[in-house]
Parts: sequence; C-alpha cells; structure tokens
Amino acid sequence: MDLNDIRVAAQRIAGQVHVTPIMTSHLIDQLLGCKCFFKCENLQKVGAFKARGACNAVAQLSDAEASCGVATHSSGNHGAALAFAAKIREIPAYVVMPSNAPQVKKDAVAAYGATIIECEPNLPAREQGLRHIVATTGAHFVPPYDDERIIAGQGTAALELLEQAPELDMIMAPVGGGGLLAGTALAAKGLKPDIIVFGAEPEGADDAARSFHSGVRVTEVDAQTIADGLRTTLGATNFAIIHESVDDILTVSEANILLAMKLMWTRLKLVVEPSSAVPIAAILQHKARFKDKKVGVVISGGNVELSQLPF
Amino acid sequence: MDLNDIRVAAQRIAGQVHVTPIMTSHLIDQLLGCKCFFKCENLQKVGAFKARGACNAVAQLSDAEASCGVATHSSGNHGAALAFAAKIREIPAYVVMPSNAPQVKKDAVAAYGATIIECEPNLPAREQGLRHIVATTGAHFVPPYDDERIIAGQGTAALELLEQAPELDMIMAPVGGGGLLAGTALAAKGLKPDIIVFGAEPEGADDAARSFHSGVRVTEVDAQTIADGLRTTLGATNFAIIHESVDDILTVSEANILLAMKLMWTRLKLVVEPSSAVPIAAILQHKARFKDKKVGVVISGGNVELSQLPF
Repeated sequence: MDLNDIRVAAQRIAGQVHVTPIMTSHLIDQLLGCKCFFKCENLQKVGAFKARGACNAVAQLSDAEASCGVATHSSGNHGAALAFAAKIREIPAYVVMPSNAPQVKKDAVAAYGATIIECEPNLPAREQGLRHIVATTGAHFVPPYDDERIIAGQGTAALELLEQAPELDMIMAPVGGGGLLAGTALAAKGLKPDIIVFGAEPEGADDAARSFHSGVRVTEVDAQTIADGLRTTLGATNFAIIHESVDDILTVSEANILLAMKLMWTRLKLVVEPSSAVPIAAILQHKARFKDKKVGVVISGGNVELSQLPF
Repeated sequence: MDLNDIRVAAQRIAGQVHVTPIMTSHLIDQLLGCKCFFKCENLQKVGAFKARGACNAVAQLSDAEASCGVATHSSGNHGAALAFAAKIREIPAYVVMPSNAPQVKKDAVAAYGATIIECEPNLPAREQGLRHIVATTGAHFVPPYDDERIIAGQGTAALELLEQAPELDMIMAPVGGGGLLAGTALAAKGLKPDIIVFGAEPEGADDAARSFHSGVRVTEVDAQTIADGLRTTLGATNFAIIHESVDDILTVSEANILLAMKLMWTRLKLVVEPSSAVPIAAILQHKARFKDKKVGVVISGGNVELSQLPF
C-alpha cells in the first residue's frame, strides 16, 4: 500500500464524507509550546473518522458482493460508520453489538437503518454472532481496522490535513487497532517524506507501543483506559505499516488524557471523545519533543455519553 | 442607528476578531423540520460574540479617553471581552466582578491581564464598585449592552452570517440585555428587509418578551433560568431598536433549553453555553412557525463550567 491507495480512496468517498475543518487555538499553543493544527474528524459524518474507511470499503464491493449487504461486530463508531456507508449504497447492514454497548451507540446504528444483533459482551460471542449472521444472510464482512480498504479510507483524513496545512513538521494520531495511524503514516510520509509521524496511546492499553518497540506484535492487552476507542489491539496489516513508517509511539497517563480532554473542550469549544485527547496528552507529557514545531493532530471523534463525562 | 453603523464596526474590528464558521446538521434539520445555519460565536475570541462589541467600543475611544483604560462590571463574558479588547489597544482594563462569579470567568479576565475588583454579588455593589474604580483611575466605562458601540459590534455577527448564507428566511438570537438581538435586527433588516427576525428568551426571564408585547420596557425580573447570559433586563437603547425592528420574541421552557443544549452538543459536537441553546429551544417549542424555512441561528458562546453540566 502507498499514497496512491489513499488518493484513490479520497476520490472514491468524495461527496459521501465531509472535508472537515482545521481549528487552532493560541492559548493551547502557548501552553504546549508548539503550534497545533486540529483536524476535526469529530465533525465528520457519524461523528468520527470511521466514516471514511467504511465508505471506502463499501464503495469497492462488486454488485455481487454487495447484494446481501455488509456485516461487522462493533461496540462503537465502526458499527455506525458501516451502517452509514451501507445506507448510501442502499444495501442492508448487520451489526453485532455487545449487550453492554452504550445506548447512544446503539441508537446511532439503528438511526442509519442497520439491523442490530445483540450478543454477550466478549470477543468470542461477538465473533460467533458475526459468523452466524454472515452464514445466514450472505452479508460481506467489513472489519473495523485490519483491512487495506479501511486503512486507505482512514488515511484520507491526513491527506486532507496536509493539503489544508502543508507546512506541518509532525503529524499525530491516536492508536487502537491502528487503522487511523497506519493510514496517516502512509499519507503523510508519501506526501512529505521528512515529516515526523507519531502515534499516541494510553499507558493502560500500550500494546501498540510495546509491539512497535519490540518489533513483535502484541495481540493481547488488559486495557485499562477511559479512551474507549483505543482498547483494541493492533491489527496485523496495521502493525506492518506502522512498524515501517511511524517514527515513534508515545504513551500517556490517564491523568494527562483527562487534562488534555478538558483543555480541548474548554479552549477549542469542541466535544471530543477521550481517544481524541490522547495525542494532546502526549504533547503535554513529552513537551520537549514538540518544542516550536508545527504539529497536525487528528481529532478522531466526538461520540461521548454526555451523562458520563469525567469532569 | 442603521446597517451602516454595523458595516463600519465590521471594518473597525476586522483582524481583531474571528470570522466564525457556519455549521449545519442534517439530523437537527430533520428533527426541527427546518434548515438551520449555525453561526459559531462560541468559536469567537473569548468564546463569545461579546468580543465584537467590546472591540468596537474600545477601538473608537480617543487617545484621551483611552489613556486611563476602560472599566466595567460583569459576572461573565463581557468582562473577558473588554479585557481582551483593552489588551489589543494596550490600555488597562478594570473589571468589577461579584465574589460568586465562576472561577473560570475570573481566570479568563485575569488571563487577558485585566485588574479584577471583587464585590458583593448584587447590582448596587457592582455599580458602587464601578463608580469607585472610575473615580479613582479615570477609566472609561464600557457598558455590557446599553450602548450604540456595543450594539453595532454585536450586529457584525449577523452581517457575516448573511454574507455566508444570504438565502436565509429568518434569523434568531437569544435576548438578555439585548445587545446581540438589537444588532442582529439592524443588520438583518438593513440587508434584507423581508427577513423575519426573532428573539428567543427563557420563560423564567421573560422581561424582553413582556416589554416587546406591551410596548413598555420591563426593568425588573426575578430571573430563574439556567441560561446565565440571559438573566439581565433589556437595555433602553436595545428596547427601542428591538421594538421597532424585531418580528417577535419567543419564550421557552427550561426543559426545552436542556433538550436543545443536549441536541447541539450531541449533533454539532460543539460546546455551547445554555444561552446559546435558547433559539433552538424556541424552534422545538414553536415548530410550526419555522416549517421548511432557512433559519440563521447565532450561537452566542461556549463558556460553561464543565464541572457543572446539566446532563
């Protein structure tokens, strides 16, 4: 995979997803000692960058592949994104969701007309539920991150960001399954080979950092973090790209995630989910590495349960 | 006063304040049955439209008037806005603040380098504090709303909005002291005489609606509303303009303010203060009057105490 895959994806999904704005804040820049360019994927369709990958995957299906619809398992944004992409293509979507998924996420998936299949809240039950729905409906499985179509789609956010702010020295994305970070690295290094690409990850779910530094993909993690979008482990395709193209993965404390989240809500006036605060937490925690740099930051999403805010 | 005052104000403050973006949401439009264009003054300098009026007032002072600085009393955004405008002009600012003003507001005023004078939390104490500081420093008093310079400055938000979305059928602003609504009416009716201009006000602080409908300005109100920016009573200059140029003032329940605020946080992914939700609450509560219309809505500000959210 390379930059060209991301350029093609951008053409494919143009008109289906938003070109999201860049925001800046003098007060945040003063506090962090660098100049931040925030790519507002919280203002994206379905409230997260996930709309990009899902649209890119669904748009590539042949009519035969698409005829019985698409399926996935998800507790979060990928389910809503796939439902959204399926609605555009006018095909059915089946989303296996754990019974403890937040009501707001279930409502989002249902609002796009997808069929929700509830299962026990564990990975074997989710995979079993998915196999069953694929077997009975013939739906095409679209994975959440370990998939080249998904990676290329997520990379279009960084492609846009670098078109909007070509002067960037660095670019950062949070890392969970690695779809966003892998796509970001391919886009950024392809466009600007000397740009520095960082991943940012909670200390309490640091499988990507450990994988990156050891060179061996860690496939299990007992994730303990408020950043619910980053609790998954790194995908295989994602790891290969990240290990090759990312400069470093920085880990951050939960305290700094909360501090960064509050800073973004207060100063940017944006509703961002905890995962989106992880790159800013990384700048707070590793200030010297960012001093006086121009840093692009992908705000991954804005889907939070307002009744459960950590403030 | 007329449109020309607002055009001149816009030229005067250009470069000092942001041209804020317009946002839209298909889901909100579906729910409300009309098409909304949100003017994001929560993304304005100091987090509120108040920066416009304060800059317009301070920029017009003669060197003699400005030499001893500016002063006001404020529990909220006007104090921060005046401090911001004074910092641009490099003159001192004195802000008399009630001792129970939120810490976040005091911090904002202090961050712009203004001197804070604390007083007892009642209007006589605030006015006494202001008289004292004006007498001892020679500072020029800049009122929060009952002032033509302030009204003209606040009107620049609607001027921009109508340049960005000239197709509007209606335009709405919340009404407290009436600076924003008076300026909005002058700008909108001046640019487009057949546009409908609505004010929106909490039922629990309905002095503007009662003044508007009786033709006699109500000067006292026992304000009971979460919309802290709208607890003041309508200014005299403001009332004259509003009575002449506004089509109606709609009042809304507290329940609808909360519903609207949650809708805006969830769907627009924007941090907005309760006052900003009042126009959307008015559409929720008076849907038939807005059916299929293109409605411009000024989001007045985004300064909220995150530890005291009503969700």
